[in-house]
Amino acid sequence: MALIVQKFGGTSVGSTSHIKNVAKRVSKWVKGDNQIVVVVSAMAGETNRLFNMISDITDSQIDREIDAVAATGEQVTAGLLSLALKQLGIPSQSFTGWQVPIMTDGAYTKARIKNICGENILSSLSDGYVPIVTGFQGMDDAKSTNTLGRGGSDTSAVAIAASLSADECQIYTDVDGVYTTDPRVVSNACLLKTITFEEMLEMASLGSKVLQLRSVEFAGKYHVKLRVLSSLTSPDCPLEEEAKSGTLITYEDDNTMEQAEVSGIAFNKDEAKVTVMGVPDKPGIAFSILDPIAAANIEVDVIVQNIGKDGTTDFSFTVARKDLTKTLDTLRPVAKHIKARDLIGDDDICKVGLVGVGMRSHVGIASKMFKALSDENINIQMISTSEIKITVVIHENSMEAATKILHKAFELDKK
Amino acid sequence: MALIVQKFGGTSVGSTSHIKNVAKRVSKWVKGDNQIVVVVSAMAGETNRLFNMISDITDSQIDREIDAVAATGEQVTAGLLSLALKQLGIPSQSFTGWQVPIMTDGAYTKARIKNICGENILSSLSDGYVPIVTGFQGMDDAKSTNTLGRGGSDTSAVAIAASLSADECQIYTDVDGVYTTDPRVVSNACLLKTITFEEMLEMASLGSKVLQLRSVEFAGKYHVKLRVLSSLTSPDCPLEEEAKSGTLITYEDDNTMEQAEVSGIAFNKDEAKVTVMGVPDKPGIAFSILDPIAAANIEVDVIVQNIGKDGTTDFSFTVARKDLTKTLDTLRPVAKHIKARDLIGDDDICKVGLVGVGMRSHVGIASKMFKALSDENINIQMISTSEIKITVVIHENSMEAATKILHKAFELDKK
Repeated sequence: MALIVQKFGGTSVGSTSHIKNVAKRVSKWVKGDNQIVVVVSAMAGETNRLFNMISDITDSQIDREIDAVAATGEQVTAGLLSLALKQLGIPSQSFTGWQVPIMTDGAYTKARIKNICGENILSSLSDGYVPIVTGFQGMDDAKSTNTLGRGGSDTSAVAIAASLSADECQIYTDVDGVYTTDPRVVSNACLLKTITFEEMLEMASLGSKVLQLRSVEFAGKYHVKLRVLSSLTSPDCPLEEEAKSGTLITYEDDNTMEQAEVSGIAFNKDEAKVTVMGVPDKPGIAFSILDPIAAANIEVDVIVQNIGKDGTTDFSFTVARKDLTKTLDTLRPVAKHIKARDLIGDDDICKVGLVGVGMRSHVGIASKMFKALSDENINIQMISTSEIKITVVIHENSMEAATKILHKAFELDKK
Repeated sequence: MALIVQKFGGTSVGSTSHIKNVAKRVSKWVKGDNQIVVVVSAMAGETNRLFNMISDITDSQIDREIDAVAATGEQVTAGLLSLALKQLGIPSQSFTGWQVPIMTDGAYTKARIKNICGENILSSLSDGYVPIVTGFQGMDDAKSTNTLGRGGSDTSAVAIAASLSADECQIYTDVDGVYTTDPRVVSNACLLKTITFEEMLEMASLGSKVLQLRSVEFAGKYHVKLRVLSSLTSPDCPLEEEAKSGTLITYEDDNTMEQAEVSGIAFNKDEAKVTVMGVPDKPGIAFSILDPIAAANIEVDVIVQNIGKDGTTDFSFTVARKDLTKTLDTLRPVAKHIKARDLIGDDDICKVGLVGVGMRSHVGIASKMFKALSDENINIQMISTSEIKITVVIHENSMEAATKILHKAFELDKK
């Protein structure tokens, strides 16, 4: 008998008939002699409905009461799913954040989970119930309701799985799992049966939206076996088949000895490049440029600096595209102050990255990548590497071509 | 400085703009140097929305999870009103049933309040906040959410006022207060400045829908000064005027010595009469008729039995109109068993009642009532009396005429 945490979100619980379908699916797992704990998020559209009312009333973005209102969405789903399970003859109990309790740090609208006491859930399980837990929320030491920020339900599910030492945490989504790259761009992209936590993190940081970054970090930290699988299959799909479907996110050790060089290709168009040109090449320059950016709460991604020959250097970095104007406004006085030759913003770029733990032990990946891009006449503007990732910044018009050629060059279609 | 509990329900919090209006009203009271605690119910339509989803999923009427879902309605209102107050510069905190905590008895969908610990609300007040408490709900010993049944928010408000020893509990409604009778029936009905708890209870039991019966009982039991007043006036209405508006429900002692004979006239069309005819007049008959009715969960109101002369008697009682068929089905075998001559159901009747604590010390009220009805040719089918109420059952077509003639006969238009 396995203890499994299953998470169902947005569209999969978007209506009462969807919720009945989820109940059917859960009941199949229960009848297959598993102990199931379910984590749910709000019905699709519900969180938006609540936030529309909130913004009718206040301009505030962070408030104890915003959390009090927002947290009700998940409570409705949990109660309804529990009723739907009972209707199928499966005893069930719903749990809110405070009923578990899931203790959070008091940072309204973006709280972090401090700890989870699994006792109530475990006793509900041993009394023969299927516990349905609200995702996205917890309670702080002052007994106020906190929410984890949008999408936090994945993190709730992983954290609950960790606290219960569950055998697996299954995140049901509207995709089949994690692909070698986005199938909308490369039609013969392959579903990965497994991927490591590190690779998954790198894919996510490159814009692959399958799972929330925080939930993957959490799963890696607490050794939770995490599976992404589809909520769009029929709930009557055979249990053995469903149990093996999707993508399992595991530790490197869990995999076979032979690592693939490259597991996947991710990309992100939502970036802009900023270059401070002709900066005098002396200590403290990087700090004097990036400190005001950090103070303005702008997140910086790829950073590249080349040592110049004439005693000056070009300093480039990427930011989210929506932050470009703000970034340039912030840097204009700085550029003047440090006597830079020019300040340039460029919002028609994109990032494309190769990810794979196999890179560590295989030389030549980078040169193979650069050759493939050069064969397609794609100009590389920036390069950034980590242990298991090589990212290039290129013109956004070349994004699809680059992804396709790299997918082919590294034989990802043969996975 | 007075401590006042104010309750706002359904339509008065039916939209975000309504909620902003309530915030204005509350802020006026706060600026008038009062300590205010607000109790809210769900936004109009919200409870129905939730129950529609519940009935999509389950046939069950009573379930822990129905309460978990239904209780979210008030949580949304409480959070939004708190945000609206902050927007006006009034610090505010929302409290759910479990955050107060309001302890209830565990009877899902129709729980009763066991006790309220006012400590958190009082400390919120002394920290300078306006606490906004969710009505309609509490938490049982197992930490499950309970609801008090529809309309239970009035009871929540009174119970909170009692636990805080508030100076007054104000129930804002969509009427101006309690009238001598329904102004839709008698156009010159008068607003009562005061009414006693007992009179209010009798008015409510006769169908006057201004306040929930339970909340009045509660207020009477715990000596809470209860005021019914209008939420439809402008929130900018002067505080002194608003403070004296509506109807104050008090103890008899609080009133002037001279009691009016009759305070009001209430009526109820939602009744049906059942008569078991020609029942052998012997001990145990009433029990043998009413026991199966009670077992079928049917509530009985007026009961009349006359001793017959031929050794048989007619036994009559009234039930809610919707229960008539079920009542007759239940009684058919019983009537046969006790050898009754006939069993008759009559669903075109109504109840009209005079209410007034002055009745106790004034003779002749009943005869004056019967004469007035007889002058109008209205036939009385049943009569039932209590210390402060005389109820007659008449044909429903005569209801308006009876109410009008009684209103005039007892000079209620001159109040």
